Amino acid sequence: MRTLVEMIAAKRDGETLSREEIGALVDALGRGELADYQMAAWLMAVYFRGLDDGETVALTDAMLRSGRVLDLSRVPGVKVDKHSTGGVGDKVSICLAPLVAACGVPVPMVSGRGLGHTGGTLDKLEAIPGFRTQIAAEDFARIVGEVGCCMIGQTAEIAPADKRIYALRDVTATVECIPLIVASILSKKLAEGIDALVLDVKVGRGAFMKDLARARALAEALVRVGTQAGKRVSALLTDMESPLGVAVGNAVETREALDVLAGSGPADLVECTMRLGAEMLVLGEVAGDEPAARARLAAAIADGSAARTAERMIAAQGGDARVVADRGRLEVAPEEIVVPSPRDGFVTRVDALAIGLAGVAMGAGRTRADQSVDHAVGILVEAKPGDRVTRGQPLARLRVRAKNAAASSIAERVASAFAIGDAPPHHQPLVLDRIGA
Amino acid sequence: MRTLVEMIAAKRDGETLSREEIGALVDALGRGELADYQMAAWLMAVYFRGLDDGETVALTDAMLRSGRVLDLSRVPGVKVDKHSTGGVGDKVSICLAPLVAACGVPVPMVSGRGLGHTGGTLDKLEAIPGFRTQIAAEDFARIVGEVGCCMIGQTAEIAPADKRIYALRDVTATVECIPLIVASILSKKLAEGIDALVLDVKVGRGAFMKDLARARALAEALVRVGTQAGKRVSALLTDMESPLGVAVGNAVETREALDVLAGSGPADLVECTMRLGAEMLVLGEVAGDEPAARARLAAAIADGSAARTAERMIAAQGGDARVVADRGRLEVAPEEIVVPSPRDGFVTRVDALAIGLAGVAMGAGRTRADQSVDHAVGILVEAKPGDRVTRGQPLARLRVRAKNAAASSIAERVASAFAIGDAPPHHQPLVLDRIGA
Repeated sequence: MRTLVEMIAAKRDGETLSREEIGALVDALGRGELADYQMAAWLMAVYFRGLDDGETVALTDAMLRSGRVLDLSRVPGVKVDKHSTGGVGDKVSICLAPLVAACGVPVPMVSGRGLGHTGGTLDKLEAIPGFRTQIAAEDFARIVGEVGCCMIGQTAEIAPADKRIYALRDVTATVECIPLIVASILSKKLAEGIDALVLDVKVGRGAFMKDLARARALAEALVRVGTQAGKRVSALLTDMESPLGVAVGNAVETREALDVLAGSGPADLVECTMRLGAEMLVLGEVAGDEPAARARLAAAIADGSAARTAERMIAAQGGDARVVADRGRLEVAPEEIVVPSPRDGFVTRVDALAIGLAGVAMGAGRTRADQSVDHAVGILVEAKPGDRVTRGQPLARLRVRAKNAAASSIAERVASAFAIGDAPPHHQPLVLDRIGA
Repeated sequence: MRTLVEMIAAKRDGETLSREEIGALVDALGRGELADYQMAAWLMAVYFRGLDDGETVALTDAMLRSGRVLDLSRVPGVKVDKHSTGGVGDKVSICLAPLVAACGVPVPMVSGRGLGHTGGTLDKLEAIPGFRTQIAAEDFARIVGEVGCCMIGQTAEIAPADKRIYALRDVTATVECIPLIVASILSKKLAEGIDALVLDVKVGRGAFMKDLARARALAEALVRVGTQAGKRVSALLTDMESPLGVAVGNAVETREALDVLAGSGPADLVECTMRLGAEMLVLGEVAGDEPAARARLAAAIADGSAARTAERMIAAQGGDARVVADRGRLEVAPEEIVVPSPRDGFVTRVDALAIGLAGVAMGAGRTRADQSVDHAVGILVEAKPGDRVTRGQPLARLRVRAKNAAASSIAERVASAFAIGDAPPHHQPLVLDRIGA
């Protein structure tokens, strides 16, 4: 086996590292034998040279092994999780996990916080009074077993090498590298003790991947590497040019996700939830194909079992379960600013990035990981691409703590996210492609 | 101006950084605003993308400005130094500096220590009893003014950013990158307060650059960038397939360099010294062309002025100046092991790398920067490529502290560095090319 410096040189020169070598690199980082600056140089070499699937599997495995792998072997059934690469208004996890669990597929879910224009499931869940996202591993396994799902934050025990490497990538311009993204996502997800994983790879202005080709390359790599790592994996490529659903914020998004469990909610959010849920039910072996899976999901909404599962999960995690039936209990900021349409016409674009950044400016998101968020503020995007609007009709409503100059300035930013034209835009489907067996 | 992380991304993407941006990167490293891991990532991006000459000048200048630039403005004349990229048996500096100074060109020289198979001028000079290579900046300028030359080690004040960046490169597989090599060499040399610089770029088995094309690319970059930085610069490409001269070690090399000042010494060492000295005299404006310069150098040896300059320099630096006239005062290890020729024939190769590594194994060099060296041990390479030898004739002599098993093992390594054939090899000239105006 090569020395650590020789491994950096080998990757620099486009050579392939063995599984043992990749493991040795990650282990040495953990033990302090490989310095952060050496890992940073290796990561930049990987940026240029790439990793083949075998190397990516080895990196995933080494980062996974750097921490604790949750043991869900006592929970019967095929454990399935969903991971989204992040977007604006993406509250799917909050309705999807209880819905899929209600259909008999256990969903152990470890989620993240918002950063920049993309929101985070943990921030949204914490809009529920009392809801705890820091749960001990034993309790996590118990709740998944008893309720069918549990939604927590990444603990220090899960894939600490990924945490350290991601922090390095973030400040060394090595984030945008597909094999590194794949290993980072999969190491965290595999640490949950799952058997299968559905990926929602977002594409467009509001997503990490701006164009379809790169997004497809990422989705394909995730499916290939995840499969080689012994899991059942499929991926959907979904549109993120405009925000998903109506609500962008924390409490407003949680409210909207719970609407879906009550049988309402915006059509695009419902469709995204159903498509991802169907993938999970098929991988989880409770439905044979997509039509059967969709029927099962619809039934779980109709008979209230999905909502009851959400109530049980929220209660198990210390939250006020009454929010499921009485969504007015979620505190939304009292003041409203309406953003009117400047003219008659068709909405041709709602820029997800601009809406997401406006949300950050309101305090719904954060620009640095150590900032806190305001759960009550948010934006309701009431006109979506293709909608006909008349002059003065509300395009969006801002829910703010006070109608002051700052709020007015943000309202202008929200207004500029909309483009109104004379004809409807070309219809963009929600699901752009599917990768998987 | 871009942020620091944006500068890493820009170089990663093959963009050119401005002079101000390169300066900001290096300054931020010094102030702790750019972490070592960020610099390491940038260096790896530079490895892949390169730096153009303008960026290399900017990097050189920023590293130079990170420390103190010696002020030799009170020393009259064109100050000229020589830098070698390092080899085996390369003791040229020790005879060259006093010789050129004796001809009227001031030589302020900052040298390095040996590492790996390449020796270092400071280690060789310290074989002279009492000789000090750590000299305060004011004393350095005074000695250059009074004696004409002074030879010291790099202080913490000289180009500290280069020291830090080099330490990073050494452990991140980013050493072998021409613009980074150029900036490292030139920042240190320009900090000496020189007006002109002659470069000896070694090529071959015992050199950092193993092939002529890479060595020429380095020499050309050094001359271009040094010229753009406002200095007169020329470079010789010289052979380092086999060791230079006879002696490889510390005291034995210093003894051989002093032989040259006494009018003797091996022909290749004398020729290398004369060629580099002639370049320095022409750049230093005391000779109009190479023939005139060589005549001046020969006269300074013949009339003893070169040797007297060496004596004055050694005395000024605390050393025993009697070694110049009485070279037996340099302590050489007492025991000798002869390496005989295994057969009649012609020496076709003396592997400089193998000889250099054998020297390290004897204790004459070091494998880590914090090791000390034994000044007294060494190897005398008595047969050179092209020499006719008979069976049993000494090819080399080892000077060791004791004739033990370790010494015998090293003698075998030295023996294996020699190849003996039936016909003389193709003649390899010492100076392979010259780059410069």
